[in-house]
Amino acid sequence: MSSFIANTKDMQFVLHELLKVSNSDVPGYEEMDRDFTEAVLDAAGKVSSEVLAPLNEVGDKEGCVLENGVVRTPKGFDKAFEAMKEGGWTALDCDPEFGGQGMPYLLNCAVGEMFVSANMAFNMYQGLTHGAYSAIHTHGTDDQKQTYLPKMVTCDWTGTMNLTEPHCGTDLGLMRTKAEPQDDGSYAITGTKIFISAGDHDLSDNVIHLVLAKAPGGGEGTKGVSLFIVPKFLVNEDGSLGERNSLSVGKLEEKMGIHGNATCVMNYDGAKGWLLGDLHKGMRAMFTMMNEARLGVGLQGYAVAEAAYQEAVAYAKDRTQGRDVTGVKAPEKAADPIIVHPDVRRMLMDQKSFVEGARAFTFWGAHLIDRSHALNDAEAEGLISLMTPVIKGFLTDKGFETAVSAQQVFGGHGYTEDWPMSQHVRDARIAMIYEGANGIQALDLVGRKLAQDGGKHVMAFFEMVKAECKSHDDDERMKPFTDALKNASKQLQTAGMFFMQNGMKNPNAALSGSYDFMHLMGHVCLGLMWTRMAKAAFTALDNGASDTAFYEGKIATGRYYMARQLPACAMHLARIETGADPVMALADDQF
Amino acid sequence: MSSFIANTKDMQFVLHELLKVSNSDVPGYEEMDRDFTEAVLDAAGKVSSEVLAPLNEVGDKEGCVLENGVVRTPKGFDKAFEAMKEGGWTALDCDPEFGGQGMPYLLNCAVGEMFVSANMAFNMYQGLTHGAYSAIHTHGTDDQKQTYLPKMVTCDWTGTMNLTEPHCGTDLGLMRTKAEPQDDGSYAITGTKIFISAGDHDLSDNVIHLVLAKAPGGGEGTKGVSLFIVPKFLVNEDGSLGERNSLSVGKLEEKMGIHGNATCVMNYDGAKGWLLGDLHKGMRAMFTMMNEARLGVGLQGYAVAEAAYQEAVAYAKDRTQGRDVTGVKAPEKAADPIIVHPDVRRMLMDQKSFVEGARAFTFWGAHLIDRSHALNDAEAEGLISLMTPVIKGFLTDKGFETAVSAQQVFGGHGYTEDWPMSQHVRDARIAMIYEGANGIQALDLVGRKLAQDGGKHVMAFFEMVKAECKSHDDDERMKPFTDALKNASKQLQTAGMFFMQNGMKNPNAALSGSYDFMHLMGHVCLGLMWTRMAKAAFTALDNGASDTAFYEGKIATGRYYMARQLPACAMHLARIETGADPVMALADDQF
Repeated sequence: MSSFIANTKDMQFVLHELLKVSNSDVPGYEEMDRDFTEAVLDAAGKVSSEVLAPLNEVGDKEGCVLENGVVRTPKGFDKAFEAMKEGGWTALDCDPEFGGQGMPYLLNCAVGEMFVSANMAFNMYQGLTHGAYSAIHTHGTDDQKQTYLPKMVTCDWTGTMNLTEPHCGTDLGLMRTKAEPQDDGSYAITGTKIFISAGDHDLSDNVIHLVLAKAPGGGEGTKGVSLFIVPKFLVNEDGSLGERNSLSVGKLEEKMGIHGNATCVMNYDGAKGWLLGDLHKGMRAMFTMMNEARLGVGLQGYAVAEAAYQEAVAYAKDRTQGRDVTGVKAPEKAADPIIVHPDVRRMLMDQKSFVEGARAFTFWGAHLIDRSHALNDAEAEGLISLMTPVIKGFLTDKGFETAVSAQQVFGGHGYTEDWPMSQHVRDARIAMIYEGANGIQALDLVGRKLAQDGGKHVMAFFEMVKAECKSHDDDERMKPFTDALKNASKQLQTAGMFFMQNGMKNPNAALSGSYDFMHLMGHVCLGLMWTRMAKAAFTALDNGASDTAFYEGKIATGRYYMARQLPACAMHLARIETGADPVMALADDQF
Repeated sequence: MSSFIANTKDMQFVLHELLKVSNSDVPGYEEMDRDFTEAVLDAAGKVSSEVLAPLNEVGDKEGCVLENGVVRTPKGFDKAFEAMKEGGWTALDCDPEFGGQGMPYLLNCAVGEMFVSANMAFNMYQGLTHGAYSAIHTHGTDDQKQTYLPKMVTCDWTGTMNLTEPHCGTDLGLMRTKAEPQDDGSYAITGTKIFISAGDHDLSDNVIHLVLAKAPGGGEGTKGVSLFIVPKFLVNEDGSLGERNSLSVGKLEEKMGIHGNATCVMNYDGAKGWLLGDLHKGMRAMFTMMNEARLGVGLQGYAVAEAAYQEAVAYAKDRTQGRDVTGVKAPEKAADPIIVHPDVRRMLMDQKSFVEGARAFTFWGAHLIDRSHALNDAEAEGLISLMTPVIKGFLTDKGFETAVSAQQVFGGHGYTEDWPMSQHVRDARIAMIYEGANGIQALDLVGRKLAQDGGKHVMAFFEMVKAECKSHDDDERMKPFTDALKNASKQLQTAGMFFMQNGMKNPNAALSGSYDFMHLMGHVCLGLMWTRMAKAAFTALDNGASDTAFYEGKIATGRYYMARQLPACAMHLARIETGADPVMALADDQF
């Protein structure tokens, strides 16, 4: 049984002492004062602990079942989903015009983190709906918005994204699903889509599928692809539900984890669909949601790690085994709690320093998305576009690694399904794969984002890091942070330079190092976050903050990250600088 | 369905071109010529592919079931077990006096690698038996040997090891299981043991449990512990089976993986047991088997990785997605096989260079065990004692990482249970935990093995590396290997020096870096193996070997390891040199 408790204290620190949200010029942020966000976070934390977390194990053990063409979710999911709807948690950052509460995306992310920590599989039902909501909100006609959005904001109807087909995932140009124009202006959609999260279930009255398909006349590859709204039940003029559309669940996937979420094979047999956005511009419509969707997956990466970390800390304090080599700590017991052992502490510090750094990084990213939307801030848009593959790729790789490390603290007990650790590891694994496998994130970063707008955004990032370091020149206490950050940033620049010098004549020289570059950049980003957090903590202490344990702990955790994680940067650079040769040396049949 | 095919070619390379077994002075090795080992490996490979691999998925999906106190193994396991017995595969390196074939342990390891790759959970039934066989063979009375060994050599009776209890795993001094002396010279064993692999099942007529328990008068902690033989069925004077002993299966553990193996809670209720070895010297008796048992787990680490790697290669050649950026490779298809993409190749090269390096390392370790046993070679004994925690800890960590990497090649398909990748990852995970969690391996290495016999063995290792590099001074082609190896070895020495200088006044300064030291040393060991393998491959090419693709591939794979894996050494050293402070900075309640 999970004992998850949302770390609202750290979230408040990031919102108010790192991002200083209520002083921001982003419209809507002025209302985000400490008391307000505390109230929201506390309420969401209560839902996480009391409603979602108790169902996490149930979802894993029971899974979803396909019976007579209908998907049944695990016991209790329906009531919990009702509670989420009633609490308004599905509508937090949605447009008030359609019943949303119009709060910043950033706050939605903070709340989302808790929900994912408590029950990742459950939270995907509303998460996918949010993605579909955003697509219709951005690209839909007024009519489409009026028809679908109010019901999707409340999650009375849920949504899905249909991209993948059995023979194509990354390479959507190979898509076979067809859309044939009908006389009534609709399209007949025919084809098979796989890996459709929340593809069908018993939590909502209708499921609004967004389906990528090829309509005639669009040309080869992804150019011919359009996006369609394909509801499970057709919607009558008066908004009531009409007949069942010609679509069905072909199969539920048996998966390594996220058993509580229904991953469906969807068959479309001439299903009625309506064009969303421009004809043959479906990829573009889909990709406008990409930054948010990928940030959401990066968030899953560290949110599951947070839940696993909490379990590991509790276990390490409770489990007694062996004695502290520097002197007995619990003489009244036959052994000391294992948290006394340096190697257990190493694992816990790895976990803590990652999760807190990742939270700051993700919240910062969400803040950039708010900026770019609300202020049309091109710099913020460019920066988050650059950061998105790093947030997704780095945080999910490290999130999985963190869950594995937390499981390790439990010894053999962590391998049994009596404890929640196996589930955390199995759940965390998917985040490295879906929404663009992490190798694709690295390709996006190195092959597209670095050079975007003439390399302007990555240069701006380097300048930002430089300015950050410079701003602490007068604070001797910051030296361990700024020295390590400068060094790491220099290594990142050297790697970028290597790509520029070698990638032109041989693209493989850059692509062979793309994955290492993504990790190197991830470390620089978390190093930047820790530098900022350390300064915020020193400032709080300077100002006489009473909670010295929290702020001193924050600084010590940051020092750990800088001292023990940033040395990975040199390794990544060394690998990058070996270029394409070691990677490409073998012929296919030498493998 | 698994499509595993044993890599006998690479095994032959390691046996004959790296270890040059038939030229060795180890008794028994002289018979190990190329033809002989090829015949054995081919036959074992056939069993692996045809008998064991087809049952791997069955074992995972079906698992073991406890019904009315009796454990039922998955469908087909019984027939496969009979096939293993009939083929003599359970007796390969056992003592001919008790029906074994008396072959070297090394050859048993090579065969064992295949069996584990094909079906790790299944192979544990005989693996555990082999461990119990060794304990009785080493410590048993003549009577005990005659009673148990012939049946255990054939696996008509299987064996187990009972160490862990609910409240104690690592710290066996906390043990509560009691052994009370009886008038007939036996002991009454009472207590609960957990995580007993192959604890009960329907594959053998009897299960011979080796149980650690506390007999009166032994004092506190592990000092009072003795080892007992506790058979499921008592054995009559004539060797036939007598009455059922007072022991029972309390529960079967639900685990993340190795579902095909029965992990039991064992209850002993005054069960009849006989002392094995000396009274109150049970830990020592158990630990004499440690090197072999831990090497066997390290072997599991890379053997599962080998199976996962084979799947990844096949998938990467078959799955088409996207185009080679340097030019279309499969114009007849709508997309190129994904093996053309640098980042896919990076993953495959990581996997291949690890598995082949690990195989060489493990075989070398097995060879050292043969040397130490057959020749009473103290140097070999010291060296393998030093290497054992590295083989276990490093190879299982990297083996798991490799399985995860192989799963990643499959994208979303790797996350479904339709493909074997989830199972490989879930199975591989346990090897990092059991037989001493990897943190304990690191503690053993840094806290005990480095200083053993005045540090003689680690110094000998450094000398060996130095001599190896020196021996290639005249071969310019070896420079990428020897330069990287020298550098890594120097970093390892620097780390050892740091421990010596700082560990005395603060043991935590050494223990905080123990895990990184284990990994650093693992890289140096694999770097040494790759250096030797590269030289062997160059030599074969110089001598006009016809299979140039194999030898050139070997050299290229080695260069990849040196160029792209050894840079991790500097990272580990940098972490080690931060000492205890970053790791130990927080108070317990700051986590």
